[in-house]
Order: sequence, then C-alpha cells, then structure tokens
Amino acid sequence: MTSPQQPGSTPRDGRADTVPEGEGTVRRTVLPGGLRVITETLPTVRSAAFGIWAGVGSRDEEVADAGASHYLEHVLFKGTAKRSALEISAAVDAVGGDLNAFTAKEYTCYYARVLDSDLPLAVDVVSDMVAASVNRPEDVEAERGVILEEIHMRDDDPGDLIHDEFSLALYGDVPLGRPILGTEESINALSRDRIHGYYRDHYKPSDLVVSVAGNIDHDEVVRMVETAWAPYLSDIAAPSPSAPRVGGPDVPVDPSVRVLDKDTEQAHIVLGCEGVRRTDDRRFALGVLNAALGGGMSSRLFQEIREKRGLAYSVYSFTSQYADSGIFGVYAGCQPGKAEEVLAICREEIAKVLDGGLTDEELERGKGQLRGGMVLGLEDTGSRMSRIGKSELVYESLLPVDEVLARIEGVTLDDVRDIAAEVLARPQALTVIGPFEDADFSL
Amino acid sequence: MTSPQQPGSTPRDGRADTVPEGEGTVRRTVLPGGLRVITETLPTVRSAAFGIWAGVGSRDEEVADAGASHYLEHVLFKGTAKRSALEISAAVDAVGGDLNAFTAKEYTCYYARVLDSDLPLAVDVVSDMVAASVNRPEDVEAERGVILEEIHMRDDDPGDLIHDEFSLALYGDVPLGRPILGTEESINALSRDRIHGYYRDHYKPSDLVVSVAGNIDHDEVVRMVETAWAPYLSDIAAPSPSAPRVGGPDVPVDPSVRVLDKDTEQAHIVLGCEGVRRTDDRRFALGVLNAALGGGMSSRLFQEIREKRGLAYSVYSFTSQYADSGIFGVYAGCQPGKAEEVLAICREEIAKVLDGGLTDEELERGKGQLRGGMVLGLEDTGSRMSRIGKSELVYESLLPVDEVLARIEGVTLDDVRDIAAEVLARPQALTVIGPFEDADFSL
Repeated sequence: MTSPQQPGSTPRDGRADTVPEGEGTVRRTVLPGGLRVITETLPTVRSAAFGIWAGVGSRDEEVADAGASHYLEHVLFKGTAKRSALEISAAVDAVGGDLNAFTAKEYTCYYARVLDSDLPLAVDVVSDMVAASVNRPEDVEAERGVILEEIHMRDDDPGDLIHDEFSLALYGDVPLGRPILGTEESINALSRDRIHGYYRDHYKPSDLVVSVAGNIDHDEVVRMVETAWAPYLSDIAAPSPSAPRVGGPDVPVDPSVRVLDKDTEQAHIVLGCEGVRRTDDRRFALGVLNAALGGGMSSRLFQEIREKRGLAYSVYSFTSQYADSGIFGVYAGCQPGKAEEVLAICREEIAKVLDGGLTDEELERGKGQLRGGMVLGLEDTGSRMSRIGKSELVYESLLPVDEVLARIEGVTLDDVRDIAAEVLARPQALTVIGPFEDADFSL
Repeated sequence: MTSPQQPGSTPRDGRADTVPEGEGTVRRTVLPGGLRVITETLPTVRSAAFGIWAGVGSRDEEVADAGASHYLEHVLFKGTAKRSALEISAAVDAVGGDLNAFTAKEYTCYYARVLDSDLPLAVDVVSDMVAASVNRPEDVEAERGVILEEIHMRDDDPGDLIHDEFSLALYGDVPLGRPILGTEESINALSRDRIHGYYRDHYKPSDLVVSVAGNIDHDEVVRMVETAWAPYLSDIAAPSPSAPRVGGPDVPVDPSVRVLDKDTEQAHIVLGCEGVRRTDDRRFALGVLNAALGGGMSSRLFQEIREKRGLAYSVYSFTSQYADSGIFGVYAGCQPGKAEEVLAICREEIAKVLDGGLTDEELERGKGQLRGGMVLGLEDTGSRMSRIGKSELVYESLLPVDEVLARIEGVTLDDVRDIAAEVLARPQALTVIGPFEDADFSL
C-alpha cells in the first residue's frame, strides 16, 4: 500500500490544498501516482456525493474512435476483476444510492450519491469500476446494442438531437463538432481492443480526479481512496497529475445551415455562433447577456416569442464553454409554418441587443439571476462535487464561490455591450429539424 | 385584515398542527376562509421553497373542459390586477429564483424556490398570481398557442407521449384516462369564460394549500401569507378547508391495445395494468416489487433486457397512485424489429415474479432502495415542500418520514407475493409507438 501525502502539506503541483468555501472547506491531496482527491465538507447535510473524473471526452477521439469515450463509460459498468455488472449495481441499489455517469466533450464522470454513512461503499464500488474494469469482449458486444439504442432514442427526441446537429453546423466534422454518442457507423466499427486501449491510455491515476462533497472528513476520504486504489498506485511511472485542459489557439469554426427533414409536429430551431472559451474573463458578461436575451421567463426572447405572440412553448438562449471555444445559441420549437417568423424575431432581438445593449434593469436582473441560480444550485451535494471535480480538470485553480459572485457583481453595461458587439456579430450557424427542405432556410 | 388562528391552537378540522420530523418540524395553521398554511423548518439550509397547491387537476374536467386545469395553470402566469406577466417573472428572475408550476391529474402546484432572504418576495408574487389572476381574454388567446405548442412538443417526444397513450389504453376515454394537456380540439374549443369560470370554481382559499419548506419560521410565514391574502379571505362563505381527495369506489379499467404508427427509430412500449390506490397499505410492498422488477440497474428487467442482451437503453417499471386507482407498468425502447422479443421478456419476467416471488436478497435490496431514495430525495427543499403540500391535499394526515421508513422496513416476502399475485394477474393494457400496424400487437 502506498502512503498518502500528509493532508495540509504543500501539493506537488503548486495548487492550494485548502480553500475556505462558504459553510464548507475545500481540501486537496495528491496521492502517489498522481491521483488527486478533492473534497468539500458540508457538515449540515446527511448525504455524500462521490465522483471520479477522467479528463477525456469525445473531442479527444479520432474519427475511427468516434464515440469511444462514451462507449467506454458504459463498459465500465459491466464488470471488474472482482465484481459483475449485477454486483456493481446491486451494491448501490441496496443502499438507495444513485449510481450513474456522464460523458461530455472534454471529460467523463462516474458518480454515486449516497447517505453519508454509505460513503465507504460508494468509494469502494466506484473506484473498483474505474480502476479495475476488465472490458470483456462479450460485455463490449452486448453494450454496443445499448449504445445504438441510446443513439436511436436521441434521434427520436428532436429537442435533444438538434443540439448535436448544431455542433456539426458550427464546427463541421471535427472532434469538437461531432456527437458525443458517436454514430451508428462508428459504434459498429469500434472493437473491444480499441475500447480497451482507450481505457488503458486515458484512465491512468494521474489522469483522474476523485471529488467528494457532503458530510465527510477529508482525511478519512483520503484513507478510503488510498485503500481502494492501493493496487493501482504502487508502480506508476508518471507521479504528477496531468495538467488541466486550459486550451490552445482558437478552434476554427465553419458555420453552415443544416436542415433535417423529419416528419415532426414542430419545427425545432437553433441559431447560434461561437461564444467564449471557459477561461475567458468575459464569460460573466456573456452570462448576463444570455440571461437577458433568453435565460428566463422575463427575457426578451421569452417575452416576444412566447408571452406576447404565443408562438412557442420552449424558447431559450444558452452558452457552452470549452477549453478553446464556446457556443452562444438560441433555441425555439414552433409550428413549422411559423418557423420563418420565429427565426426573424430571434434575429431582430439579437440585432436590438447589438444595437442598444441592455437596460439598467436587465443588467441588474441578469446579475441577480446568475447569483441566485448559483447559490441555490450549490445546495445539492452532487452539484458541489461536480464543481470541484470539473474545476480540477479544466481550470488552473478553483474559483471560490464568493469570487464568482464578485465577478458577476462587477459586470457593467459596457462589459455586456462589448461582448455583445463581438459575439453577436460573429458568423452564425443554423439548424432546423422539421418537415423542410434544405432550400427552405439560409443565413 | 383577518386575524390568523393562533399557531399552536387546535386546528378546525382535527388535524395535528405540529409534527416533529427528523431535523425539521412540520407545523400547520388554518387561516379564516379555510386557507391552510403548512411549513417545515429546516434550519441548516439557506433556501426556501414556497408552493401553493390547488386540489384540482385534469381528472376533474368534463369532456368540454379537457385540458382546462393545465391551461389555467399557464394563464395564472399572465397577470394580476397589479402585475403584468413580465412583472411576475422579472421579480423572481431578479433574485435568481426558480418560478414554475405543474399540473397533475389530481392537483396543481405553483411554486418558487428562492434564497431564504427572498421568501417575502416569493410569498407576495406567487400569492398574487394565484389569488388575483385577471385572465384577460387576450392573454388566454395568446396562451392557447403556447399550449398547442406544448402538445406538439409532447407529440414529438415518444418517450413522453407513450405514457399519455398508456393512460388511455388502461382507463379509456374517461377523465382519469385523458391527457393532462387536453387535445388540440379541446384546447381550441376552450373559451376565456370557461377558463375563468374554472378558476373561480376551483381556486377558493378553502381549496388551496400553502406549503413552505426551508430555513423559515412558521409564525413569520403565516403572517406573510395572511398579509398577501388579506383581501381574499375576509368574506368567504366556507370557512373550513376542503376535505382531502381520499377516493371513492374503484375506478373501472378498460384495458386495450393502442398502436401509434409513427416513423420513429425505436419502438416505445408500455405494458401495464391497474396498481393500487394512494391510501392502500400494500403500496409499500408494491414499491419493493417495483424496485426488484424494474426500479434500478440491478432489477430483473434491466439485467435481462439491457445488461445481458443489449436490447434497450431505457427500460424500467413504474407505479402511479391516484385516490381510487393506480398504475403498475413497464417501459422499454428498442429496435422495432426487437419489439416482440422485448415484450416477450417483459411478460416472462412478470410471470416469473408471479410464480416464484422475490428472493430474500431482492427483498432487502428493494427496501434499501426505497429507504435511501426517500431520505436522499428529502435533502432538497423543493421535495420537502411537495411532500407536505401534496399530503395535505390527498391524505387524511401526514405520514412522518420515520413512519414511512418503518412501513418499508416491515414489508415481508409474503406481502410482496400477495400483492404480486393480485396486481400482476390483472388484465393488461399495451401501448406501442413506432412503425407498426394495429395488427402487429395483441394482448
């Protein structure tokens, strides 16, 4: 068994190991082999969320691997050297826990949310899944059918499908543009060896982050993780954690129009452009802009399209951030015969913001919306676990909640005007799903 | 202004007014006019969830009113004597709160989740919406388009649509069987006067329950609610709260097969039958049965259909409870060419449980799953608010969490065998959405 770095000592990579955080405290320990353990103690709750994050996602896949990160995420539930798939799920079901995982473009997360007294079980099961997956050929084969059905289910839900289509419309057929799920073709082509190789290459302890939030003690968590990971940390070559994914040069965008002819009741529309990268200081100003344009029921798009004209049930704007790029977009679902009108209103509202910026009232309301939404969101141990785990993978350091709130508070009308002038003037991509032909839409 | 009943005094309808509840305490006060205020104090959180519940839902609608409860729920966001739709949404957006509503078959709920310091604002805005809606003809008209788009969106999502179709397949074209949203035809036919009449008939203070959970003080909440409701409580004829909806004779079921021919990628299947009513003591045994058959990743259906054979991504069983009926069903989404095979496995697994019951291990795991799921679910102020608010409308008294846990713990293998023998042997209804003809499926 390896011995952990003493809690409180200086971490190997210069990151702070203790950050006071509202009611909680965030602490960080790096185990030999480079496995990071980051925890947030929230003494007033009775649950704990335990996660293991891998710094790999669909944008790390070559064409031949498309969908491998997500496929592997599924296979990790299929069994380890000492547990079958049933034993993995039964262990967590038996305590009423929530065991799940998700794959994004830049990371993958496996987690269990349990009562605090069941944390040792969660640490043991999730660590085993991630550290000791055997990826049996017959399991990889059975799971291929499951992934294909997940793709089909996504295809049957246009409100979901449209976001995958929009990524392709904005970035083109490049890793960041391709769907996380892969395609039927790529999933059918992926071999067990390729999946297993992907696992060996991307799930080394130094690539991983263990994050835990809830009614827990950091030192105890470190001891539990150390015990669970002992066989896998002893003779690792690279002792330092992988560097965070902070991004290189801008990802080129290649905006186009994609029209998917489908016999749907609604036209599903996304119009958007490149936003800002995750580390861009202007992301707070863009967040306020997003809130005012389409972030809530009082936003301009909601008011104009739904409240005044009754043209849509679902209408909103959104932002996504990646290491070296981002997305700003608007979605609306409406009658196919009203698609042109709705699209015209979206364009008009975007033009109005470009022209005149926001009002003082919209600025204050947008800030309040971001602030309140953030604080309310952090009442859940799962959200807390996600915040610290993801931050470790994608930022140089954890931005404390108070600092985030101060940055939001600091946004001015000029900041919003500046980011609007830059982002909203960028070349736009457009995706429409519905009973249409390509020629029905253009930019 | 009316004066509230003194907290701590005996409520008018014989319900307990204080129930100790884990860390929190549940308290209840009835205001003049029969408006109930029920709160749960959770001193360790920083948020508050404020809800107003109306004891009316889609099953209270005649054919000519189909969809009226839900339509009205939308219209209540459109404006009051003193606030426009924008002023309603802007007030809550400005503090980053979550303002929303939902309509069910037996009740309707309007709620806001906010930081505890913003509770006075939530009380004021949500109370105003519910108490003083003006239901302007032009607003009812604009919202008609929104509802129609919500229906179209539901139609475009087969995983959602299938549950509405299944209710029709099980109960037939009766109030409990019809969709909460109504139909295009019924929504187009509903007049402003009909909607307004529905509001006047079903939103009297004695029909409503105010429920609040979070870092709040019961007496303060009662004072805030009293102030907000003062103009509407003074001269009400019926001073006692409406009786809870505890149900009469069994609702007759009329199981059939419904096949919806749609050009989807997947076959979406629900097979089910009548379950148990909300007050049936055997609901805990049925809950354990549901967990073991299709409630988690370790369940029989998940193992057989997804884990071993890779035939589906989404497969689960579910229960619903109403005052005088209930549903037990299984869902699976699979390749259309595999629909028959998946359906055969579902039937086989149901037959096996009927035949041999559960194992000791499944019993214990099922109980653990219900217990843990319940306790973890109650860490959220929104869930706590829902539990006490809904309970007031549909139960004679609130079942404390410890009592629920004890009831779950008390379930035996014989209890499960008995409820399986009764429920799983009942006549089944079947619904399938996909590229099929009616003749492709039978019972």
